[in-house]
Amino acid sequence: MKRIAILGATGSIGKSTLDLVERNPERFEVTAVTAATNVQALADVVRRTSATLAVVADESRYSDLCQLLAGTNCRVAAGEDALVEAAAGDADLVIAAIVGCAGLRPVMGAVEAGKTIGLANKEALVTAGGLMTAAAAASGATILPVDSEHNAIFQCLAGGRREDVARLILTASGGPFRAASAETIGAATPAQAVAHPNWSMGAKISVDSATMMNKGLELIEAHYLFGLPSEHIDILVHPQSVVHSMVEFVDGSVLAQLGTADMRIPIAYALAWPERIETPAQRLDLAAVGRLEFEVPDLERFPALRLAREALEAGGAVPIALNAANEVAVASFLAGEISFPEIAHVVHEALISAEYDAPRTISDVLEIDRVTRDRALAMMTTSCS
Amino acid sequence: MKRIAILGATGSIGKSTLDLVERNPERFEVTAVTAATNVQALADVVRRTSATLAVVADESRYSDLCQLLAGTNCRVAAGEDALVEAAAGDADLVIAAIVGCAGLRPVMGAVEAGKTIGLANKEALVTAGGLMTAAAAASGATILPVDSEHNAIFQCLAGGRREDVARLILTASGGPFRAASAETIGAATPAQAVAHPNWSMGAKISVDSATMMNKGLELIEAHYLFGLPSEHIDILVHPQSVVHSMVEFVDGSVLAQLGTADMRIPIAYALAWPERIETPAQRLDLAAVGRLEFEVPDLERFPALRLAREALEAGGAVPIALNAANEVAVASFLAGEISFPEIAHVVHEALISAEYDAPRTISDVLEIDRVTRDRALAMMTTSCS
Repeated sequence: MKRIAILGATGSIGKSTLDLVERNPERFEVTAVTAATNVQALADVVRRTSATLAVVADESRYSDLCQLLAGTNCRVAAGEDALVEAAAGDADLVIAAIVGCAGLRPVMGAVEAGKTIGLANKEALVTAGGLMTAAAAASGATILPVDSEHNAIFQCLAGGRREDVARLILTASGGPFRAASAETIGAATPAQAVAHPNWSMGAKISVDSATMMNKGLELIEAHYLFGLPSEHIDILVHPQSVVHSMVEFVDGSVLAQLGTADMRIPIAYALAWPERIETPAQRLDLAAVGRLEFEVPDLERFPALRLAREALEAGGAVPIALNAANEVAVASFLAGEISFPEIAHVVHEALISAEYDAPRTISDVLEIDRVTRDRALAMMTTSCS
Repeated sequence: MKRIAILGATGSIGKSTLDLVERNPERFEVTAVTAATNVQALADVVRRTSATLAVVADESRYSDLCQLLAGTNCRVAAGEDALVEAAAGDADLVIAAIVGCAGLRPVMGAVEAGKTIGLANKEALVTAGGLMTAAAAASGATILPVDSEHNAIFQCLAGGRREDVARLILTASGGPFRAASAETIGAATPAQAVAHPNWSMGAKISVDSATMMNKGLELIEAHYLFGLPSEHIDILVHPQSVVHSMVEFVDGSVLAQLGTADMRIPIAYALAWPERIETPAQRLDLAAVGRLEFEVPDLERFPALRLAREALEAGGAVPIALNAANEVAVASFLAGEISFPEIAHVVHEALISAEYDAPRTISDVLEIDRVTRDRALAMMTTSCS
């Protein structure tokens, strides 16, 4: 039995994880679950599993959760230290699916405890990639990426040696504006920007797909996950999103991972690794798909790709500033306060003014994140006034 | 230093192997080389390498080869037993690139000696797959397929467990008649049939690509190489021949190997396995390729696919009869004696009348091969008279 802790058990990744765990009761046992605020959903999860620890991040919901779980064998806790406890506890595998910078300390807790981690929190590697990978090297933790692109690369690398890798090729759908003119993109509304062609996602990540900042953030993650420099990581637009990413080896061989758009495939891979389990995901039918297309991304219409690469190459605190400014700018765009192209302008300004020392702790990361957000907000307020 | 024996050193695969060996003198050393008849070319190979054994299959060329290699340190031999000696000698890796059934005994020699074998001889697995894999299991021999499709599958399986494989997907270019009507195919000339769209190949294998018998033979090879039953091996037409083949796992993940049409990539993989070496092969540029297409093969226009699957499922001696009848029929088609659709008819007749016991030795295989050829020839003569 593999013991699983699910950080972020009530979100989309958490639910898919539970679905797979319940289909394989002879393999997996859930020992700890956490949620941000939704104690009702968290209590439901506890009743479906054998979890003995339930943590709500929001301390004000502690007594509610206690009441909901009264009479069960599940211990209740709240707050960030309890999240870290859930991450670093007795699980064999930690599914880290907390959204945003709130996930940083719990992920670091799991890394420092030497766990195997199914990593679905993007911020961990974008903002604290150097710290996380150094800590993983020290503790012996294994990071299994759950994000479909990085999971694809991980699968392609499984049979090979890292020194034989020539290039990683991250595929990108190109988002809803892939074929749009610069004029159309300039006038894009939030409703147009969140209409992702292939995956059903939240508003923020859908806008990131429309700007292609999502792929820029994945570029940074790929660098930290796989240890290759920026110039050995390419981005290739592939509108069908069937090829999830690729690895080119020194001999000229390219390995690719393909599949339908179902997150249960990479989650199942992380759960069962180094084995595999069956999933209910629809099977890929390439004859029905018919055609896979590939094109070079346009850095003029999608400046976020250029900004993200610059941030990666600058290193230190700059990727943190990139991520923080982007989040603030996307929220502002979704609120109708700035135009679509202004998202990249806000991020660009944040990168220029990012004069922080490289972070040495997660506290440093969170502080740089906070300061960048404040500055970006102030800048937008100034520009708009 | 990895010691390499090259069986079929003067052919296309042999030349590419030598090219890669010479680019990596610190890794590889050629110890034995063989050729069918071309002693001049074989002597040239010996002079370029440190080979200490040169074998010509044609015994009548023995004295010529002795003369050409007089004064060198290379021992000269001739005939089938000497080929087997070269295969089973002190090499760490045997590149088995002898064309046709002449390769069977040497390959079996390498297998029985427990060698690692870079297998480029198709007949070994098509006609003697069961014998070869049983012998490999007994001796501990490792078969590394050099054929681009099987090499692709081998690469995709490298990081996985065989029990997690759901399906192998062999890709097929579809050949020059992929989009042709049944009428056009019915009237196909040898010149039209040998015009392969993606690979430069010999006349016989080009006709096999046009009938798609080539893919049928690869289906049989894949069965013996990877141990999956016929119903778990699909064939998918992919005109660009960029995806060389794929593996679908039980979780729904599909791994694919891609590359340019350069045999030095799979040969390099076999040479360096389990490591990789750089090759001069052109790198795959998917954005330049632009589009990859996939379609289900048409068993009506390409009955060879159906015949090959029937032969695989019948097992025993039937794949030998399939291969032998096909060779005779293709030769007859190339000589202008039968029409293109008659190739499949000849093969079909051979399968119907294949009432041989399953082969227990390579001698049995060669005998069934010989008898089938005689019968197919007799049948064609009768039909044509």
